[in-house]
Amino acid sequence: MELPVYSSDVEQKLGALGISLPETASPLALYQPVRRGGYYLYVSGQIAMSEGSLVHPGVVGESVGVDLAAQAARVCTINGLAAVKKFIGGLDGIRLVKLSGYVASAPNFHQQPKVIDGASQLLIDVFGPEVGMGARAAVGVSALPLGSSVEVELIFELDSTVYS
Amino acid sequence: MELPVYSSDVEQKLGALGISLPETASPLALYQPVRRGGYYLYVSGQIAMSEGSLVHPGVVGESVGVDLAAQAARVCTINGLAAVKKFIGGLDGIRLVKLSGYVASAPNFHQQPKVIDGASQLLIDVFGPEVGMGARAAVGVSALPLGSSVEVELIFELDSTVYS
Amino acid sequence: MELPVYSSDVEQKLGALGISLPETASPLALYQPVRRGGYYLYVSGQIAMSEGSLVHPGVVGESVGVDLAAQAARVCTINGLAAVKKFIGGLDGIRLVKLSGYVASAPNFHQQPKVIDGASQLLIDVFGPEVGMGARAAVGVSALPLGSSVEVELIFELDSTVYS
Repeated sequence: MELPVYSSDVEQKLGALGISLPETASPLALYQPVRRGGYYLYVSGQIAMSEGSLVHPGVVGESVGVDLAAQAARVCTINGLAAVKKFIGGLDGIRLVKLSGYVASAPNFHQQPKVIDGASQLLIDVFGPEVGMGARAAVGVSALPLGSSVEVELIFELDSTVYS
Repeated sequence: MELPVYSSDVEQKLGALGISLPETASPLALYQPVRRGGYYLYVSGQIAMSEGSLVHPGVVGESVGVDLAAQAARVCTINGLAAVKKFIGGLDGIRLVKLSGYVASAPNFHQQPKVIDGASQLLIDVFGPEVGMGARAAVGVSALPLGSSVEVELIFELDSTVYS
Repeated sequence: MELPVYSSDVEQKLGALGISLPETASPLALYQPVRRGGYYLYVSGQIAMSEGSLVHPGVVGESVGVDLAAQAARVCTINGLAAVKKFIGGLDGIRLVKLSGYVASAPNFHQQPKVIDGASQLLIDVFGPEVGMGARAAVGVSALPLGSSVEVELIFELDSTVYS
């Protein structure tokens, strides 16, 4: 059984990758961007909003291609990290448990895993594979909020020796 | 980091809101309405069934409008509370961790958050915002059980000083 | 409140049912088949892959009927059990918390619960109802990876007296 490894020096890695976390947007509706339950952080579904507009909106397999959708998935994930940072004050001492990826999909589009790899690759780049690669589900849905092509939901575990 | 606050006097608030919880329906299939794991309660996906028939069934953005779908989301949530009450014998000593809202959506319908606010508003009315507003995801799906326009899934945390 | 009961003698039951768990397939993409967080095991979304090809792929309510889709759901679940066995070295000392079932659905197909019963029945056969019947959600989605008709995601709880 794996021994849990938690994140460290994440701000430095973000800097090295040239990623600056955005100001967190206000929730679209009546929810919290992040909710803690025990030693878990539940991050609300994130859409591909960047600087006030959606990155590559539309239906994947129709108006949006796989590679652009993977970029949208990356943007969703950066928004999720920004929400976590705002909530716990940093990005150290956590590990990914679960990623759920929803892809607005044409009925004959079946490469959801390739799209959601845009989210997973970002987490691996930032946290390393041990911390950033968790369980995952990727499904194709009929439509997403505001017309986003991708929505990403995350569950992280907190290191109980760091967070009381 | 937030200090968890748990619900209290929920029965009184329900009374003041004029909400009476229904008899819980038998599950549609081979599952438990509520499952406890550690200090979490997982509430199975609830559809908008009320007194034996669906409230505002259909596809949102096609045969069902946003406001009626939000009412359906409210009904789903009341069914979820009824299931929790039956399982733990009341509604005190809990807090919402996560709400997942599935909206049967036409491909060009993108107001899932507004629909699912019908669920979140009910939880805020009953529990107050600190207890009743958690993480959330809202997605548009192609079809839901029995033709419900909305399905709502909930995760609550139990107060470990109240529940052993 | 239920007292948790955990699985035992699962290998024997599998044998009696004539089920042999497959070699676990490599993940389709950048994720772990199973991730532990605390005393929970999160099993990644499983599709109906068997010996290198999909069982009953397609859209339920269109090209695939309910009964065949339920068989696909069963295959997904066997794949999930194989992943758990590989991760913890067996299938004893666990209990199902939550099953999420995604069914690739025609817009007018509303029997997702019947399809996902193919997954739940397998878990009940293998674990018995107390251990194998948990919370559940079943939704209809527009498309699934590789064209699978069903995807099944599982959360198990570990017996803390068995797993450290």
